[in-house]
Amino acid sequence: MATTLLCARSSSLLVCNSSVSLRSFAPSLSFPSPHLHNQPHYCHFLSSFAFSGALGVRRFCPPSRSVSSWWCRADPSTTAGVVEAEGVLVEEKKEDDEENDDDDDDDDSFRGSVPAFQKRLRIADIKGGPQGGLERVGEYMLVRGWVRTCRSQKTFAFIEVNDGSAVSNLQAVVNTNVEGYNEVEAGRVTTGASVSIEGVLVESQGSKQKVELQASKLLLIGGSDAATFPVQKKRLSREYLRSIAHLRPRTNTFGAVARVRNALAFATHQFFKEKGFVWVASPIITASDCEGAGEQFCVTTLIPNSHEDPSTPLSKIPSTKDGLLDWSQDFFGRPAFLTVSGQLNAEIYATALCDVYTFGPTFRAENSNTSRHLAEFWMIEPELAFADLRDDMACATAYLQYVIKYILENCKEDMEFFDQWIEKGIITRLTNVVEKEFMHITYTSAVALLQKAKKTFEFPVEWGCDLQSEHERYLTEEAFSGNPVIVTDYPKEIKAFYMRENADGKTVAAMDLLVPRVGELIGGSQREERLDVLERRIEELGLNKESYWWYLDLRRYGSVPHAGFGLGFERLVQFATGIENIRDVIPFPRTPGSADF
Amino acid sequence: MATTLLCARSSSLLVCNSSVSLRSFAPSLSFPSPHLHNQPHYCHFLSSFAFSGALGVRRFCPPSRSVSSWWCRADPSTTAGVVEAEGVLVEEKKEDDEENDDDDDDDDSFRGSVPAFQKRLRIADIKGGPQGGLERVGEYMLVRGWVRTCRSQKTFAFIEVNDGSAVSNLQAVVNTNVEGYNEVEAGRVTTGASVSIEGVLVESQGSKQKVELQASKLLLIGGSDAATFPVQKKRLSREYLRSIAHLRPRTNTFGAVARVRNALAFATHQFFKEKGFVWVASPIITASDCEGAGEQFCVTTLIPNSHEDPSTPLSKIPSTKDGLLDWSQDFFGRPAFLTVSGQLNAEIYATALCDVYTFGPTFRAENSNTSRHLAEFWMIEPELAFADLRDDMACATAYLQYVIKYILENCKEDMEFFDQWIEKGIITRLTNVVEKEFMHITYTSAVALLQKAKKTFEFPVEWGCDLQSEHERYLTEEAFSGNPVIVTDYPKEIKAFYMRENADGKTVAAMDLLVPRVGELIGGSQREERLDVLERRIEELGLNKESYWWYLDLRRYGSVPHAGFGLGFERLVQFATGIENIRDVIPFPRTPGSADF
Repeated sequence: MATTLLCARSSSLLVCNSSVSLRSFAPSLSFPSPHLHNQPHYCHFLSSFAFSGALGVRRFCPPSRSVSSWWCRADPSTTAGVVEAEGVLVEEKKEDDEENDDDDDDDDSFRGSVPAFQKRLRIADIKGGPQGGLERVGEYMLVRGWVRTCRSQKTFAFIEVNDGSAVSNLQAVVNTNVEGYNEVEAGRVTTGASVSIEGVLVESQGSKQKVELQASKLLLIGGSDAATFPVQKKRLSREYLRSIAHLRPRTNTFGAVARVRNALAFATHQFFKEKGFVWVASPIITASDCEGAGEQFCVTTLIPNSHEDPSTPLSKIPSTKDGLLDWSQDFFGRPAFLTVSGQLNAEIYATALCDVYTFGPTFRAENSNTSRHLAEFWMIEPELAFADLRDDMACATAYLQYVIKYILENCKEDMEFFDQWIEKGIITRLTNVVEKEFMHITYTSAVALLQKAKKTFEFPVEWGCDLQSEHERYLTEEAFSGNPVIVTDYPKEIKAFYMRENADGKTVAAMDLLVPRVGELIGGSQREERLDVLERRIEELGLNKESYWWYLDLRRYGSVPHAGFGLGFERLVQFATGIENIRDVIPFPRTPGSADF
Repeated sequence: MATTLLCARSSSLLVCNSSVSLRSFAPSLSFPSPHLHNQPHYCHFLSSFAFSGALGVRRFCPPSRSVSSWWCRADPSTTAGVVEAEGVLVEEKKEDDEENDDDDDDDDSFRGSVPAFQKRLRIADIKGGPQGGLERVGEYMLVRGWVRTCRSQKTFAFIEVNDGSAVSNLQAVVNTNVEGYNEVEAGRVTTGASVSIEGVLVESQGSKQKVELQASKLLLIGGSDAATFPVQKKRLSREYLRSIAHLRPRTNTFGAVARVRNALAFATHQFFKEKGFVWVASPIITASDCEGAGEQFCVTTLIPNSHEDPSTPLSKIPSTKDGLLDWSQDFFGRPAFLTVSGQLNAEIYATALCDVYTFGPTFRAENSNTSRHLAEFWMIEPELAFADLRDDMACATAYLQYVIKYILENCKEDMEFFDQWIEKGIITRLTNVVEKEFMHITYTSAVALLQKAKKTFEFPVEWGCDLQSEHERYLTEEAFSGNPVIVTDYPKEIKAFYMRENADGKTVAAMDLLVPRVGELIGGSQREERLDVLERRIEELGLNKESYWWYLDLRRYGSVPHAGFGLGFERLVQFATGIENIRDVIPFPRTPGSADF
């Protein structure tokens, strides 16, 4: 019998690699479902499973991890066929010798091979098809997740389960006669509890969803005390949710943000991979003196770091006779800081590999308690060799359009959620970025345009000033009717020393990419590749030339025109989700006074 | 005429978005090549370019960034056809008004749209085809990179150019009558100099390469003083190269390491993306008290951070009347540290989104001056919900096989380079990892096996001890003949508090994945999801339970069995490249006393 074969047992815990071919068939073939442990330690693993009969090959429940039963459906009119199952069978351990390995096989050190890894069957996969799940109706499946709501009726209960793969839940219908219904009756299937539910996917009678799970078994895995669980169905303030950053990913908004953030990160890697760029890990700790501006965090081992006793007597900090900090006793032997940018390091690799990008955390110790500042944030910094400012503009534009297009296509449900609940019209706003032409204007022209504008700005505009957010938004939202705008060639006084000086002697080959609603999203420049000009700039600005020895070497040996830009990843996530506060688009925000979790 | 259309000029700097359709044709159609500036500021951009004629569609020189000329080849016997070129034409600026924008258009703020971004034509693309470049013979192309060698003959010179896209160079043959040959004569085309060379790809007469570039124009972009350039052709010690980390990526070895490292990172993201995992940015700075063991770096703003004057008077550090550090004046208001692991944070997201992974920098302030330790290194930490140790083993195995397979398939030339110059047989060793079965053995069985081994170990083995590298390598290399081995169920005394206690009360559901030559590459465990057991463990180990409030909450509300593992990314790069010292597989290594660049 097929059933016997599939649940063959042996006395020791044995992993057997067997290819099972079942030449028996029944209209509804059901493999036994061994007791599903709360912690299913040893289960069956199937890598493929198909049935071919008189009516052709059928689809079955796809194998999923740690599933201890399968079920296949066949047309009752079919009376003969072949079931083919291949995979690894792992003997379920008996309760009494669980974990008691030593006794079983002390003369046999070999324990077998490692099972095959299977992608989890996610609710997003179940409901994500073009027909919203209808194509899977009739499949027997195991769904695991957290209860969002449980509503008891007379003869059944509706349980909304969410597994974090999508905003939408899967509704399970649990009849009173279903194994495990007693958990519902006892009131233990509460919001936040974790459950596993087996059943058949059926067309839903309700109007809210196309499919639902007709449960045949419910297992409560971990309860959740309704009286104290902090994430109830009711709306919670963002501020409160920040104080429970360990539970907020279980809400719709933070789940969606996490998924879109992930998609933006993956699209970033994929874009640069397709274009031949190499990811470079720029260093986090740096004792390099050329990072220049920006308040930096000091990284040190001079301060005794005891979690138990946070009070630190000054006398315990190593010092010299002269009352100075004794840096020689520090891990790095001198002051070291958290990086503010990986750009200079990226230039090193660009002038060897041509096209590179960084994607890593950067830091600012600025005491800015705003909705746009974090002390720790992720930056993407591409750097292109044999490239000028126009290449840089082209790359920034292509990059932004690529990643936004990616989330519009791959995160449809999440984006609709943001459009409905976070920022009405966000899908249109982002579609414009993908489809509208990016415009180009010089700083000088932009200033002229702003001065001519029939609009009063809080900050007056004159040549030489830095553009404020209000100016940037006017340019992209009004002057260019919603097209993203790249402003180039800023006065050198308001830009960094490494930006390439233009022939006018007044401006540098810098660019800022402005988008509606946000203003500046990307900043970049062509770098000064002329050794003499760069040295002069360093001197003019009173910087210590010695510190820049290696940066200057890049201009001394095989110098090339090169350019790059920087993009704050969290700003991009804000832009792409409509979330107002930057603290809500990073899992664990670090801000003045706050570094919890 | 086609030619005229493609180089249409206008008096102002105008970007025109035009779709150009050329209905004229000549057997050898050559568009004019305007003077290639040292800094090609404004050039033509073509997004597509194709010819269809009597003999069907032909391939042309693919458009490349900042290329100011194109050339298309056609069979001379073809006498009619259509050339279709689409793209953005950007007027090349006249020399005299270069950068002098203000005067040109002070009454016209609109400067046009942003050009399309084009992937660079890389040497890897030219030589990377199945026929090693022969399929591109006859194409006119522009190659830019750095000179590896320049050998002058009587009537021509060989210039080996490398652009960092591949180990191998492209050889250019520059005849004495070629424009720019004077640079060769003057001895300015030296090792390390940057050049741009235009020409036709031809079949090579030499035996070392299949194709070479018959130059028609050579441009020296940035010179390199032969007397002082530190990266000469001769072999340089790794130690010396670490002192010039800004130039070492220009060597064959470090170029190959950077590319393979990049490929491993991309394959990591792609693997987890395919399996439905979400990337989570675990925090770098943390004031959380539950990181536990491991020497940590302190992050603070209490120490005045002046680059100019590194001497720090103790008196300038804010302190209280009692002579304690005044943490209230610190950015975070209390001691904060660099993270040692993102696992606990990953658990937060796994218990909301099911499958997640971190990929970010982590830190250890351990004074280990070994070839296997860095103070700053990147970690990959997947975490799976509704999963046990077997799922964890399966995931780790699938992951490792996936990324190794990826580089064997996608970094062929680099891997052959490592096989020839760094570690003979590395390709076989890695192929074994992809193809051989991963074996599973318990710690208890492993100890028994080691005790029975006919081999003297430096460290004796007995139940309860941690396995040393020699033991791990014996297991995978000898006991299991080169198969990777996963050892599970270690004594709880030698493992972390969060690992799930087995029913025997002595061991925990931990695993270490061992591979030949390296030993442990991956470590993981099932996490303790039972609130009462976890609380007991925290108490047993004398940890401060209060600090773990949020970690315990994950077990309090909807707790689920979950498991994960950690992988030091630099260890993986060492494993995949055969590079001995971990300082040579990260761009900018941080070790005791060293945080340069």
